[in-house]
Amino acid sequence: MTQPLDFYFFPGSTYTYLTVSRIEAKADEANVPIRWRPYNLRAILRETSVNPFPPGTAKRRYMWRDMERRAERHGIPYTSEPQHPVDPDLTALRVALVAADEGWCPEYMTAYYHSWFIDHDPPGVGDNMAVFLKGMGRDPDVVLARALAEEATRMVEASVEEAHRLGLFGSPHFVVAGEVFWGDDRLEEALEWAAGRTETAAV
Amino acid sequence: MTQPLDFYFFPGSTYTYLTVSRIEAKADEANVPIRWRPYNLRAILRETSVNPFPPGTAKRRYMWRDMERRAERHGIPYTSEPQHPVDPDLTALRVALVAADEGWCPEYMTAYYHSWFIDHDPPGVGDNMAVFLKGMGRDPDVVLARALAEEATRMVEASVEEAHRLGLFGSPHFVVAGEVFWGDDRLEEALEWAAGRTETAAV
Repeated sequence: MTQPLDFYFFPGSTYTYLTVSRIEAKADEANVPIRWRPYNLRAILRETSVNPFPPGTAKRRYMWRDMERRAERHGIPYTSEPQHPVDPDLTALRVALVAADEGWCPEYMTAYYHSWFIDHDPPGVGDNMAVFLKGMGRDPDVVLARALAEEATRMVEASVEEAHRLGLFGSPHFVVAGEVFWGDDRLEEALEWAAGRTETAAV
Repeated sequence: MTQPLDFYFFPGSTYTYLTVSRIEAKADEANVPIRWRPYNLRAILRETSVNPFPPGTAKRRYMWRDMERRAERHGIPYTSEPQHPVDPDLTALRVALVAADEGWCPEYMTAYYHSWFIDHDPPGVGDNMAVFLKGMGRDPDVVLARALAEEATRMVEASVEEAHRLGLFGSPHFVVAGEVFWGDDRLEEALEWAAGRTETAAV
């Protein structure tokens, strides 16, 4: 029995670029419905005092090189190390939550990562978002009014509560009937789980 | 042109169980020579104040569940969550360095992880090592005399210097001609690199 796959992610995550670039095609192949679930990973990392890729560390240098190799492997464009961190005010996350609510999240996230990784113009930094949304054919005034409203603040908070409930700590995560997977390199495994595995989560 | 693959690992690492259980068969298939390189990851983690799986965290709970699923996927035995952390005095690491030097590291690490994960009797804890070595058909007095000697202390220190030089920060790592891979889930990619890729490292 096929089950839907919940794709939890944070728009400030680097590796999530790989997943956003390939999840829809992979899900179509596997005939698995995907639900896009932006969430505030930054709040979770702050609570646990975790910085996954501190500046100047071997792990951070490794992450960029691994990203480059994985992009090549999957046929995803990659130029050079993009700006990071991004989205200081969570504007990109707020727009993602609105886009998910309104049904245009895949289109938004694809254009967002292209702008960040390929054009080196991250939409969540400075005043970039209005121009970026316009470029997507969206009315920036309408979208930003909703994204910066109190309702969106509650959506951000609710996303943290859900992350606690599910035990999320990174991005991307894939959740299938309570079974949690972490990392772009678990996408195939999560899709297999969604497509055919019917065990209940043993966690 | 086939190049050798250096397998860097720490005997206190949980995920390394998966790699120890499958690397020799995978390397035989790919016709890639493997060099076993135990190293003191604990020193690196302490320098950077990193605890990869702190007790009571969602990430740690995830690690055990992921381990169980990956073991099943690869046909590797797994029973239940084993003791962790282990090897408080680095005895298992010191014996690994001696075993690597003398050419019996694959046999040692396979038996070591079986004892830790399946028999729930980690050889690097308490006085377990002598009995464990005897069970392997090794003379514990001879092995431990060498493992606890000043020469082995210098091997432990040299392993940290090499980890700094290569930019290692976890276990398992695979290194092919300067190209670094991290995680059991990168084994296939590293073997492909060793078997056919001839690019120099771009890092």
